Amino acid sequence: MASFSAVQTQPNSPSPRGTSRAGGIDALVGLVAADMERVNATILSRTGSDVQMIPEVANHLISSGGKRLRPMLTLAAAAHFGYPGEGHVKLAASVEFMHTATLLHDDVVDESDLRRGKPAARMVWGNQASVLVGDFLLGQAFKMMVETGSLECLAILSNAAAVIAEGEVMQLAAAKDLDTEESTYLQVIEAKTAALFAAAAEVGPVIAGASAAEREAFRLYGLNLGLAFQLVDDALDYGGSSGALGKNVGDDFREGKITLPVIHAFSAGNDEERAFWRRCIEGGEIRDGDLERAFGLIEKHGAIAATVARAHHYGDAAREALAGLPQTPQRDALIDVIGFSIARAH
Amino acid sequence: MASFSAVQTQPNSPSPRGTSRAGGIDALVGLVAADMERVNATILSRTGSDVQMIPEVANHLISSGGKRLRPMLTLAAAAHFGYPGEGHVKLAASVEFMHTATLLHDDVVDESDLRRGKPAARMVWGNQASVLVGDFLLGQAFKMMVETGSLECLAILSNAAAVIAEGEVMQLAAAKDLDTEESTYLQVIEAKTAALFAAAAEVGPVIAGASAAEREAFRLYGLNLGLAFQLVDDALDYGGSSGALGKNVGDDFREGKITLPVIHAFSAGNDEERAFWRRCIEGGEIRDGDLERAFGLIEKHGAIAATVARAHHYGDAAREALAGLPQTPQRDALIDVIGFSIARAH
Repeated sequence: MASFSAVQTQPNSPSPRGTSRAGGIDALVGLVAADMERVNATILSRTGSDVQMIPEVANHLISSGGKRLRPMLTLAAAAHFGYPGEGHVKLAASVEFMHTATLLHDDVVDESDLRRGKPAARMVWGNQASVLVGDFLLGQAFKMMVETGSLECLAILSNAAAVIAEGEVMQLAAAKDLDTEESTYLQVIEAKTAALFAAAAEVGPVIAGASAAEREAFRLYGLNLGLAFQLVDDALDYGGSSGALGKNVGDDFREGKITLPVIHAFSAGNDEERAFWRRCIEGGEIRDGDLERAFGLIEKHGAIAATVARAHHYGDAAREALAGLPQTPQRDALIDVIGFSIARAH
Repeated sequence: MASFSAVQTQPNSPSPRGTSRAGGIDALVGLVAADMERVNATILSRTGSDVQMIPEVANHLISSGGKRLRPMLTLAAAAHFGYPGEGHVKLAASVEFMHTATLLHDDVVDESDLRRGKPAARMVWGNQASVLVGDFLLGQAFKMMVETGSLECLAILSNAAAVIAEGEVMQLAAAKDLDTEESTYLQVIEAKTAALFAAAAEVGPVIAGASAAEREAFRLYGLNLGLAFQLVDDALDYGGSSGALGKNVGDDFREGKITLPVIHAFSAGNDEERAFWRRCIEGGEIRDGDLERAFGLIEKHGAIAATVARAHHYGDAAREALAGLPQTPQRDALIDVIGFSIARAH
């Protein structure tokens, strides 16, 4: 937890709160618990269908122990402004449906076998069901947004939907290409991950009728948190343990995905090491012991530390985005989540 | 064209118009031509992306010679009410994007090699790109709907998006199951096809500020036209020619899809014939000559004629839905399209 403590002592950091030091996400979970029960009930009712396969596939993934971080952002951001209505519950459920639809489609695109430590839906019901149930959830998400009556929220979330897909295609186009620039990688993770974090955080103040400056503060918070979150995910793929992450370590390596740890180790490597990366990532020719060699090179060049340092950079920006807002339990809990997200790397 | 003429002499049929007798769809194409140019320009600009693969995949399909029947319904329905604004162009483009997204995902689900006589996008760019570009188009569709500022149109089209996906899952669940009831088949085609026709027709009067009764007339027109259209498509899969349809005749047979021609031939068949259908459709065990045998059984039991008769039934309902509206060139052209859609079967 050394790095987590370091974050807490950055300039611009608010005074640490007791509960958050211990848990990081516990304060947020506690604050949104009542609303999250309503989100869960909404999710359950909106995955209902006479077509039995739909709730089966949707709930396989939805009930598989995701943290529901994104909908928590929406709920806490609305509560920060004392929003008294119901709209934030529907928006939070919409955000979770958009995320779930993305996961269902991603597993098909990545040909993944596992998701959160369980067989991916496509392994149980087939690629077809994963594609179509993802589409169904996206349709249900938009129906719920419409029910809130907020065209501004619809604009934010529909834009995020297009940007996420664009990011996924960009990632697909960059796959197996070791000449991918770091800036392209950052564009990809901003689009495929951070855009939904940003939208989830922004629709809270929007539905609560907050000012443009307040909206922008939450949008920037979500965007930078999402960047930090994805950077840590990408570090974990080369350093976490399968049990802790609930997915196979080394997936990115086997899929030839270009992430910051690889970009870093490749650019710092000698000719022989670069040839190794090209054979594995570009050639897709992976032999026994190659994953261990990749881990060794990433360790040798400090690529995980560099990736986590970058996550801290964005974490600081997320913290700074909320620094000027009035102190509320919600604001503080959202700040604590930054440290939690980055501490996952350790 | 015998059947087409017969339809024109149904009770409740409006007086036939010269141009439509000749073409069926020409009058509609002519009436919406100016607006359709703006739809095409919108489609082109909204498939634009810095991510090169997106316009490539999208335009491969969008420019491949589809009739754009669905967006024409939106344009003509709005023009029937003299709508002077711009919203119908964005709605029509949204409808076409929703349709294109469905086709991209369908090809992945059905593992199709061809679409409109060209290699399916998934054969050129892979399943991954087809899934993700479909998602991108869906996001762009919702962005355009939001830009019209009409929550009512958003409600209609987001509901259609969920219903379409539900219908596709229902079809997947019924695949290869010869005990599927005719009523289930009709539910599937209403959801997967007719719901978008209905929504496309309904958003025209909605954006034009028409009355609830007028909206309902167009919704019912679109719904019944969509049912007739899909019935004819399913008849063509066992009777049309590959060149005319632009897709391989026999696809449904090879995929084990349960359509009305099969339901009819199976239920009318003797024990030996039923065993044949079970081996091919349920067992997926297709030998040389089986497709020809299937065609023969469908012919023997008049299954195509029964399917087309059903299409006429829904065509009549579509015609009746518009019968009470004031006569305009748009209304007449939309009525002519009913005959055109059914005449494709011959």
